[in-house]
Amino acid sequence: MKKDFLYEGKAKKLYTTDDPHIVLVIYKDDATAFNRKKTGTILNKGVVNNRISNHFFQILAGHGIPTHFIEELSERETLVKRVEIIPAEVIVRNQVAGSMARRLGLEEGHALAHSTIEFSYKKDELDDPLMADSYLTALNLCSQEELDQIKGMAFRINEILQQEMLNIGIKLIDFKLEFGRTTADGQIVLADEISPDTCRFWDAETHKKLDKDRFRHDLGGVEEAYQEMYYRLLGKTIG
Amino acid sequence: MKKDFLYEGKAKKLYTTDDPHIVLVIYKDDATAFNRKKTGTILNKGVVNNRISNHFFQILAGHGIPTHFIEELSERETLVKRVEIIPAEVIVRNQVAGSMARRLGLEEGHALAHSTIEFSYKKDELDDPLMADSYLTALNLCSQEELDQIKGMAFRINEILQQEMLNIGIKLIDFKLEFGRTTADGQIVLADEISPDTCRFWDAETHKKLDKDRFRHDLGGVEEAYQEMYYRLLGKTIG
Repeated sequence: MKKDFLYEGKAKKLYTTDDPHIVLVIYKDDATAFNRKKTGTILNKGVVNNRISNHFFQILAGHGIPTHFIEELSERETLVKRVEIIPAEVIVRNQVAGSMARRLGLEEGHALAHSTIEFSYKKDELDDPLMADSYLTALNLCSQEELDQIKGMAFRINEILQQEMLNIGIKLIDFKLEFGRTTADGQIVLADEISPDTCRFWDAETHKKLDKDRFRHDLGGVEEAYQEMYYRLLGKTIG
Repeated sequence: MKKDFLYEGKAKKLYTTDDPHIVLVIYKDDATAFNRKKTGTILNKGVVNNRISNHFFQILAGHGIPTHFIEELSERETLVKRVEIIPAEVIVRNQVAGSMARRLGLEEGHALAHSTIEFSYKKDELDDPLMADSYLTALNLCSQEELDQIKGMAFRINEILQQEMLNIGIKLIDFKLEFGRTTADGQIVLADEISPDTCRFWDAETHKKLDKDRFRHDLGGVEEAYQEMYYRLLGKTIG
């Protein structure tokens, strides 16, 4: 079904298929951090992220969350609905970490009275700047109805994933989502991926980081962390 | 009534009075920009800002907005209710300018589909970082009820001030508010000041800037701009 090359992102390549409303995603092992200031390769990351993301998207679909997922074709290849991405990274946080810790001068792991949601403008050349909620509609990036849908879905996804992760001894510290409008009917669906690249996963007991922070901050054991998440979530090893 | 020195900010000094719930504000001519990276003096700014701010606060009170204003004692001195400031700058925007233009790579004057509100964390050493709305309650800076009150007041203040400014040929591009809880009864009131230091005022026809941007960006005619706003708003000149 693979036809023409469409787009190459930091972690995935997209190809058209015979159906104009369906694209093929191929997950790469390429890793980048800090807006491409750091680059590298994480062996088998593409396999881990493809399968973990598809696993999460199927769980979320089972809870009524509309997603772009259609079918996993191979260990690195998945068919998804073609969407026009809303150019906002939607970040849900359960504990302070990463950019929030840095910007506000707080310790990683600092407690929050409740989960938070924030939006950053997807624009590499501006380093994905944080936006106020009201910027999205004021800049016509989406409608108020779409914004309300996205917020509602993001919090619901957080509830579902937090529970899933607790079952396997993982604290879901924060994660990034992207949403898009399907080219077929304009419906808002969860798109992109949910994986150790886009989430902070801490072991619930030891607080060991099992996500891309190991790559970002040269903590070692990067491949092992991805494969541990693969094993805990899917109950098997790669290969 | 002036008793003990309480606090010196960038543009004002505060003193206690005989009443523990009332403080005396003295407006200075000191000007700072870019978080004190640039400093200077704007002749008579203290007089202009004291009187303009009191003028606005009285108009807002007339529309039912609770404020800290009690009484103007002299050209630079005003009595206000003592408050515990909520450590968030509340920024309302009608057109893109300043940090929003810089962060998002947009031109100053870029249209917005509607007014926006955003919050930055009042912390000089962090350069007042932008926060998501939900950070305020998640970090216990205020309650959800207080946040809703603040948002409602901020948008209402925008409506009132936009109309006031249009009457004198000024476009209100954006402005910064601060709110506090009165020490007397914990009520949320508008505090700090509303002045050419805290607003962007553009002449409605020529788009000439009549605010602190003239100081920030070395545009010349700084004192004249402050005095022009004083004249347009109060119908008289200083002295």
